[in-house]
Amino acid sequence: MEPISLFFKHLALPSPLCRLMEDLADIPDLSRGQAMLGGGNPAHIPEVEAAVTKAVMDLAKDPSGLARAIGDYDPPRGNIRFIEVLSELLRRRYGWPIGPDNIALTNGSQSAFFALMNLLAGRMDDGTSRKVLLPLAPEYMGYMDAAVDPGVFVTIPAKIELIGDHSFKYHPDLDAIRIGPDIGAICVSRPSNPSGNVLSDSELERIWQLAAGHHVPLILDCAYGPPFPDIVYTQVSAFWRPGTILCLSLSKLGLPGVRTGIVIADPVVIHAVASINAATGLAPGGVGPAIMTRLIEEGRLETLCQEVIRPFYSRRAQMAVQILTDRLGGLPFRIHRPDGGFFIWLWLEGLPVGCLDLYERLKAAGVVVVPGRHFFIGSARDWPHADQCIRISYTTDQAHLEFGLDRLCTVIRQLYQAG
Amino acid sequence: MEPISLFFKHLALPSPLCRLMEDLADIPDLSRGQAMLGGGNPAHIPEVEAAVTKAVMDLAKDPSGLARAIGDYDPPRGNIRFIEVLSELLRRRYGWPIGPDNIALTNGSQSAFFALMNLLAGRMDDGTSRKVLLPLAPEYMGYMDAAVDPGVFVTIPAKIELIGDHSFKYHPDLDAIRIGPDIGAICVSRPSNPSGNVLSDSELERIWQLAAGHHVPLILDCAYGPPFPDIVYTQVSAFWRPGTILCLSLSKLGLPGVRTGIVIADPVVIHAVASINAATGLAPGGVGPAIMTRLIEEGRLETLCQEVIRPFYSRRAQMAVQILTDRLGGLPFRIHRPDGGFFIWLWLEGLPVGCLDLYERLKAAGVVVVPGRHFFIGSARDWPHADQCIRISYTTDQAHLEFGLDRLCTVIRQLYQAG
Repeated sequence: MEPISLFFKHLALPSPLCRLMEDLADIPDLSRGQAMLGGGNPAHIPEVEAAVTKAVMDLAKDPSGLARAIGDYDPPRGNIRFIEVLSELLRRRYGWPIGPDNIALTNGSQSAFFALMNLLAGRMDDGTSRKVLLPLAPEYMGYMDAAVDPGVFVTIPAKIELIGDHSFKYHPDLDAIRIGPDIGAICVSRPSNPSGNVLSDSELERIWQLAAGHHVPLILDCAYGPPFPDIVYTQVSAFWRPGTILCLSLSKLGLPGVRTGIVIADPVVIHAVASINAATGLAPGGVGPAIMTRLIEEGRLETLCQEVIRPFYSRRAQMAVQILTDRLGGLPFRIHRPDGGFFIWLWLEGLPVGCLDLYERLKAAGVVVVPGRHFFIGSARDWPHADQCIRISYTTDQAHLEFGLDRLCTVIRQLYQAG
Repeated sequence: MEPISLFFKHLALPSPLCRLMEDLADIPDLSRGQAMLGGGNPAHIPEVEAAVTKAVMDLAKDPSGLARAIGDYDPPRGNIRFIEVLSELLRRRYGWPIGPDNIALTNGSQSAFFALMNLLAGRMDDGTSRKVLLPLAPEYMGYMDAAVDPGVFVTIPAKIELIGDHSFKYHPDLDAIRIGPDIGAICVSRPSNPSGNVLSDSELERIWQLAAGHHVPLILDCAYGPPFPDIVYTQVSAFWRPGTILCLSLSKLGLPGVRTGIVIADPVVIHAVASINAATGLAPGGVGPAIMTRLIEEGRLETLCQEVIRPFYSRRAQMAVQILTDRLGGLPFRIHRPDGGFFIWLWLEGLPVGCLDLYERLKAAGVVVVPGRHFFIGSARDWPHADQCIRISYTTDQAHLEFGLDRLCTVIRQLYQAG
């Protein structure tokens, strides 16, 4: 195919995201010495799988259930019944001033980011260009891949708080945020993918005030956070205000295969997302919304999140930190304080090789992680720190996690000792 | 939101497709005098629903079944097991020289068109622009909505063969096809959405030869055609050759809610579609592929298509033609010969109002159809014929269909008599 379309060149070439998703599909085989600590696949939690299977079986018995969810198109905005049930839940639980007109569904969060980045940034019809400000780098690589036009992102490197000998925490450098007329949106993940950092309520409030003061929408990516799956180990509140574009997902709850993302925003944004849904895929899928409607109506969603999902990942995070701390003892490693999400973010200062090199060496040793560099977008790429981190998922089963971390520590120790 | 991004302006404003999909979601109420003869929702065929529900129940009992389909991400190319089963089926049944590397999945056919139109046409990285040639207008409106850059389509109006007093058939005007260096792809639906026309094997062969002779890929949209659901009432063969990009779907089989589209093409195209999948949505959904794998492995797919689905729609088409012929007697109407698909394409020559006006009058009378004008893209818009047709779906239940057609005929007769 020569020449190449600009759409393809900018959007999909080269794509670390595609590489990551392909890595994810290579099922690791412990007996062959392999462990997948790379992607963002949720864990297979028996209680979650049982609840989802039960919901599907119940739907199959309901004449307006499964046959309707599979056999009918939803409107471009997504399944109306689920949207109504969800808006009622959020209004009741948090008092948010929202209704069904504030909600659209997408085929997963990435589809929402694709719609939003290209709606709010890139080339404008008045000849100008707009950018998306990421106020805390490192930040999720999927945003970058979602922009059709090049050079859409401006990033602000995080401030680093060192904690003890082997821990650290990012904070947004709020004083460095400059919102000019070229900024079309501010975007931040909470919990952060990749670092597991969780913005405090006051940090988020400050960012929202900056955005609102400049009439710029704030895209708040809570794929891992509250209201659900709420995989957060610190005390923070769910957040929505007018001007916020809150992006949620069923994936990290345990349902990535149904491809359901949720956008909660002002109606003008919802209408635009629906139009983009129609053009790019007619309508979002119906199976995820049907399952979720049942879980909400039966009152099971909150119990699953608070009593099953969060404790599960919290235990995994503690286990991973423990293994790394034990096995890397004496080396100059630091682990970002795991405040939520699926990932350990490991900072290896002074490692003789960069993180891309480390990724290849680990992969050759059977352990797949994600090199940290992919999460440093725009000018943050030049930061030396960008080459010193890797993202480690702790969602795989315990045997793979222990094996993978053990081997990872061996490779890292050898590199430090050889360097 | 001022200014508007070019992406949004070109892709999603204005969007007749979005309007169509929204119409589709307004559930008609026969008791209130409403009938939905607009969208492309498949019929609720009991045998199909039973087979799908059984497949889901079986998957729920299989530890590597439903929990895997819902709980894991597939790679960007889509579920590998389904891709393998499908490529084996197509190789065995048709002898096509394809393997798993020739297949990618998408979140429905529209997502495939979105990927393909922007991969093969629009602004190129050498400064040129490429277009998609639609060799038979009217053609599916969803293609037009899928292009991010404006002015991407060139169309060739169909040649009209008049048949008797009240029937007609389109043929591609093959001598009018000019393939210059600016043509990035040729695209045609078979059966045609909207007209129900089905290109003959020899017509398709000629179009493929023209495309191949200029090294231009042929996008062949068989959402309604062979290999499945194969809703074709004439004798034609399934078609794939190197250079063809065959687009299939599970939607018209009866599963629009799972959002599964299928692209069968040369590996370079498959790889590009997978990269675009990653950027726009990480991965396609897993539920549709899991259901379909079971239907294929149990040998139920072909039986459903040949013994249930095609006869069902064939009977509906005959019923619709009969009602229209009876109720429009004496008026200068013509019905496109219904060779396949979900739609009656009604040509009302000399009607005193245009089709957009007719659409509004019918909607006010409780009957939703799709005005034909939306399917005449590019220069074909100027053809007077473009304002004289409407698309009528015959997939709704029999009572709605009879009621809707009856009322539609009443409105049309009144318009002719008043004109």
